[in-house]
Amino acid sequence: MQKKAIIKSRSATVLAGEKSIFIHMEKILASIITIGDELLIGQTIDTNSAWIAQQLNAIGIWVHRRVAVGDTREAILHALDEEGAAASLVLITGGLGPTADDITKPVLCDYFGGTLVQDDDALQNVLRIFEGRGLPTLQRNLDQALVPDVCTVIPNKRGTAPGMWFEQNGRIYIAMPGVPYEMEGMMLDYILPRLPEIFDAPSVLHHTLLTSGMGESFVAERIADFEKALPPAIKLAYLPGFGLLKLRLTALGKDKLTTAVTLAQQFTLLKSLLTDITVADEDISMGEVLGRLLTARGKTVGTAESCTGGYIAHLLTLVPGSSSYYKGSLVTYANDMKQRLLHVPPTALNTQGAVSEATVLAMAKGALEQLQTDYVIAVSGIMGPDGGTPDKPVGTVWVAVGDAQQQTAIRYQLRYDRKHNIELTAAYAINELRKFIVTSGQ
Amino acid sequence: MQKKAIIKSRSATVLAGEKSIFIHMEKILASIITIGDELLIGQTIDTNSAWIAQQLNAIGIWVHRRVAVGDTREAILHALDEEGAAASLVLITGGLGPTADDITKPVLCDYFGGTLVQDDDALQNVLRIFEGRGLPTLQRNLDQALVPDVCTVIPNKRGTAPGMWFEQNGRIYIAMPGVPYEMEGMMLDYILPRLPEIFDAPSVLHHTLLTSGMGESFVAERIADFEKALPPAIKLAYLPGFGLLKLRLTALGKDKLTTAVTLAQQFTLLKSLLTDITVADEDISMGEVLGRLLTARGKTVGTAESCTGGYIAHLLTLVPGSSSYYKGSLVTYANDMKQRLLHVPPTALNTQGAVSEATVLAMAKGALEQLQTDYVIAVSGIMGPDGGTPDKPVGTVWVAVGDAQQQTAIRYQLRYDRKHNIELTAAYAINELRKFIVTSGQ
Repeated sequence: MQKKAIIKSRSATVLAGEKSIFIHMEKILASIITIGDELLIGQTIDTNSAWIAQQLNAIGIWVHRRVAVGDTREAILHALDEEGAAASLVLITGGLGPTADDITKPVLCDYFGGTLVQDDDALQNVLRIFEGRGLPTLQRNLDQALVPDVCTVIPNKRGTAPGMWFEQNGRIYIAMPGVPYEMEGMMLDYILPRLPEIFDAPSVLHHTLLTSGMGESFVAERIADFEKALPPAIKLAYLPGFGLLKLRLTALGKDKLTTAVTLAQQFTLLKSLLTDITVADEDISMGEVLGRLLTARGKTVGTAESCTGGYIAHLLTLVPGSSSYYKGSLVTYANDMKQRLLHVPPTALNTQGAVSEATVLAMAKGALEQLQTDYVIAVSGIMGPDGGTPDKPVGTVWVAVGDAQQQTAIRYQLRYDRKHNIELTAAYAINELRKFIVTSGQ
Repeated sequence: MQKKAIIKSRSATVLAGEKSIFIHMEKILASIITIGDELLIGQTIDTNSAWIAQQLNAIGIWVHRRVAVGDTREAILHALDEEGAAASLVLITGGLGPTADDITKPVLCDYFGGTLVQDDDALQNVLRIFEGRGLPTLQRNLDQALVPDVCTVIPNKRGTAPGMWFEQNGRIYIAMPGVPYEMEGMMLDYILPRLPEIFDAPSVLHHTLLTSGMGESFVAERIADFEKALPPAIKLAYLPGFGLLKLRLTALGKDKLTTAVTLAQQFTLLKSLLTDITVADEDISMGEVLGRLLTARGKTVGTAESCTGGYIAHLLTLVPGSSSYYKGSLVTYANDMKQRLLHVPPTALNTQGAVSEATVLAMAKGALEQLQTDYVIAVSGIMGPDGGTPDKPVGTVWVAVGDAQQQTAIRYQLRYDRKHNIELTAAYAINELRKFIVTSGQ
């Protein structure tokens, strides 16, 4: 593959209300095509596209469209035509497996006018993988080493399907497997290191402020003057969700240093307007926010979970290095577990019930004793779809947070389905402990 | 909105290797357009599309493309042109909020040649929501009640932004908020009940077989004759993932009953060829599979988790009704928790280490005693990115499953990032207990 000039897309229309630099500046545009009926019938959620977009963004390439199409030849051909017309780089995932529903490779071979030929390195890779598994190699596995003679083969260290790099009319098309782990390996090992050699991309930089406690309308009012005065190279986006509001500034510029400085200036301004509701000055999870607070204070945390069934513990332990401040959790789903493991008094359970202030406070105290941590989060609630009563409908949740000196409880009334009620309870509960730690000034 | 004939898309090309009925039969085609830069820079994973596709599939409408575009007027207009050209129904989500980056409404208004006017019901809804929150209503909130005069307004009981239903050239375009809970409410309350009145959709039916223990190539070999003999109205897809292989049969037909019968016949055939590796004959989670096994036997389960940090408990308690068989979990992240709560002997921790057969078996025994359940799952491992040693690299995991009579342990070596290592460990661990229960014949 040789280094060559690539056509850059330039958007034509100028429109009122948009920051014109985002339309006018020469951006390297990429499109992502994901192939597979499972994406269209709702059987699979596409996580590849978000990952790819993050990686491309980091090297200044702007994903301007993402298209998902089914496992049919005409849908794939149509998408190649359409996305190739507007983007300099088209990344394709899916449909490279060894079974009959995997048709991406022959379709690409036809589209680029090639013939399938055997690639020796790819063949050795297939044999290596099957030998490593102690399995016989079938003809359909050997066929994975067939590649169009008009592409550069991309090695796949993590699976049997090789990737394919095509160039046509000054545009690059790259096909990768749909299995996230294989696609990611191919991107990291081979594709991402090569793209900057080919594209002279402008800098695209993001910086996100996390806030909590004020709705997006009110935030927008407060920062209205700031937003109006933003330089044309900076774009502001509001991303509400799960008790948080994210404010993202995106900067676009020819020169990385200048772009970074402009972004830093505006971000500092934005932050200064929202100090009272700022949770973090980067896009990290609530678990990471709490982890940093605890690490800075040299404190530990444990949890006592009923309705969230371990999800709070999961969010906290997703954070690398969390073992230094997270000690453990008692997931007491059944009432007798609450009594036996957390020593919740039977009177609380019998008079006020498992979902009550008395129970959740007793759970918090029990966990502090059992886990011997500095802080605790305890939750008990009714996540649905069943289990509600007139007094305590589905979505009723009690959350307690605190330390050995003080525990406070708060009641939430949620209105989502089971899965979202669990996720929201966990997000709220972690945020409650964050507020407790921050306001208690320890 | 009146009931009317809608143009149906008919695909033109016939291609070798595809089941021709999937191209020739008149399908009601839908496209989904999701709007928002956050989807293109990888900040947000799109879960709306999968949910919408599932709902449309259930009423026979086939999502043939999904497109994500950014918050720019020209990208939205281009997508409307393109998707409207091929689909009878275009569903649009995102960009309806009250802040400056939300431009979907004015763009749609222009596209359909309308003027923004105030909708009284939408205004009452905005006022109701802000009063309920005890907050003042800002002009930008009141403006949410402005709608194009060329659309039918779709009520939003769950938020302030109304939906919009447009019809043009015999095609339907529906715009909804990007907040999943609001979009889902609008679909369930208003849109899904009306679509069958408008579209005379063929039946699209799916049935998925879950298998475990054999790679897709080998399954494909075994069922090669079955696959070749499939009637043209049935399509087979292979969906590998997380220790499971899903085999999905999709049937398409004019008449729902005939289609269902044909699908049932082929599914029965498929199942009969794979009895030895079948996990379930529908597309349910591994947590649901285990839940059904336990319910059928009247048995209970508990878990002792180190490296998965509560994620196994979460997967088990995501299942509605799991409280009847799931009792609790001891998440012992720290070693002293393993000793104190699970009575893991210090000798196991000191000589073999926290990630070892001796420790994980001691955790299993400790959990059986503490939680007093019939079955147990215990895990301990190193999820990364740090904490590996030459003997026990990142990805080393010990899983133990069993009952009071017998516990067995197995070692896995995973090779993913932290998040995926946790997810895969949990999936494998639940599958190990499933196999233990099935093979122990209890």
